[in-house]
Amino acid sequence: MKIPKSIENLIEAFERLPGVGPKSAARLAFYLLRVPESERQMLGSAVLELGQKVKLCPRCFNIAETGEGSDLCLVCADEGRDSATLCVVEEPLDLLSFERMGKYKGLYHVLHGAIAPLEHIGPDNLKIAELLSRLRTEPVSEVILATNPSLEGEATAMYLKKVINQDPVVADSIKITRLASGIPTGGDLEYADALTLSKALEGRQDY
Amino acid sequence: MKIPKSIENLIEAFERLPGVGPKSAARLAFYLLRVPESERQMLGSAVLELGQKVKLCPRCFNIAETGEGSDLCLVCADEGRDSATLCVVEEPLDLLSFERMGKYKGLYHVLHGAIAPLEHIGPDNLKIAELLSRLRTEPVSEVILATNPSLEGEATAMYLKKVINQDPVVADSIKITRLASGIPTGGDLEYADALTLSKALEGRQDY
Repeated sequence: MKIPKSIENLIEAFERLPGVGPKSAARLAFYLLRVPESERQMLGSAVLELGQKVKLCPRCFNIAETGEGSDLCLVCADEGRDSATLCVVEEPLDLLSFERMGKYKGLYHVLHGAIAPLEHIGPDNLKIAELLSRLRTEPVSEVILATNPSLEGEATAMYLKKVINQDPVVADSIKITRLASGIPTGGDLEYADALTLSKALEGRQDY
Repeated sequence: MKIPKSIENLIEAFERLPGVGPKSAARLAFYLLRVPESERQMLGSAVLELGQKVKLCPRCFNIAETGEGSDLCLVCADEGRDSATLCVVEEPLDLLSFERMGKYKGLYHVLHGAIAPLEHIGPDNLKIAELLSRLRTEPVSEVILATNPSLEGEATAMYLKKVINQDPVVADSIKITRLASGIPTGGDLEYADALTLSKALEGRQDY
């Protein structure tokens, strides 16, 4: 290909990102050619700094930044949060969705994945032992299972329910809830798939 | 937002890229958190190197890399190319499409834009004077106008045709052609817009 090596490298690097095909990768690379040097600096150094500055919160496994006063992530470090409620999510990005919504005031626990036997991800590959140990030591009264309503997410939620209910220390003191599943706001019944519709019917509420 | 500054910076940097919204930007940033350090290094340094290594070819204004033997881009430096044919494109990315196709063996001239009065881009903002000077000094016998079949691209093609035909030195010695416009391969007549269909009809060929 008649293209300078430095652009080829950049296109290749962009192509490795999820959802970026060869054409978008080339478009992004050529776009960066036209922007001021400062903008390239911003993107390039932000990518390089990521690995040096980011680590996992030792309590909830959300992402946290090194070099802050505390080792904890910004949610765990916030003393205004309600430590009686724990929302269990698959990924840090899911936590971010909750924070964007802004109505949840409790704490989180990030599993870093979901049980997926086909990909050889079992309970031991997730932060489940750490969750149980938190439930035993922290004053948690409700665990909200907020894994995705996918096959893997549902399997993980069922597994978590089982292990929490079987735990001799916490079994009776903790209420386990699951996020509601149904037609999304602005959605259309006509286009809803059968499973979503059946979940919406099952979960119907007094009105 | 309860999110480490270094990730926020990266999300912001991604959001500035064309076609990347806030959600994709967050997805990309969190994806980069999970990849090995080497992959972040690859992307970050490729972005930073771009500004230092890339410049424009002094002949055709395609992108070229500094520090190579010649100042010219890889196409101009290739002595096997046919210097009698010049393909005029709007952007380096268009040149790349031709090179990917692989059947064009002539040289290029990159205008770096198209005439767009609403965006205050006139002929003087493009590499048009440089094109005319090349036509006077290089052994070009055919100019292929390969600007986009858009309003701006067509206006630019018509303008180029006029100035080349009015040039006292080159007017009679150079054949001007334009890329064919019509139904794309694999396209569907049913969905073709009226203008494309009319171009396809106008440009019909003996069969």
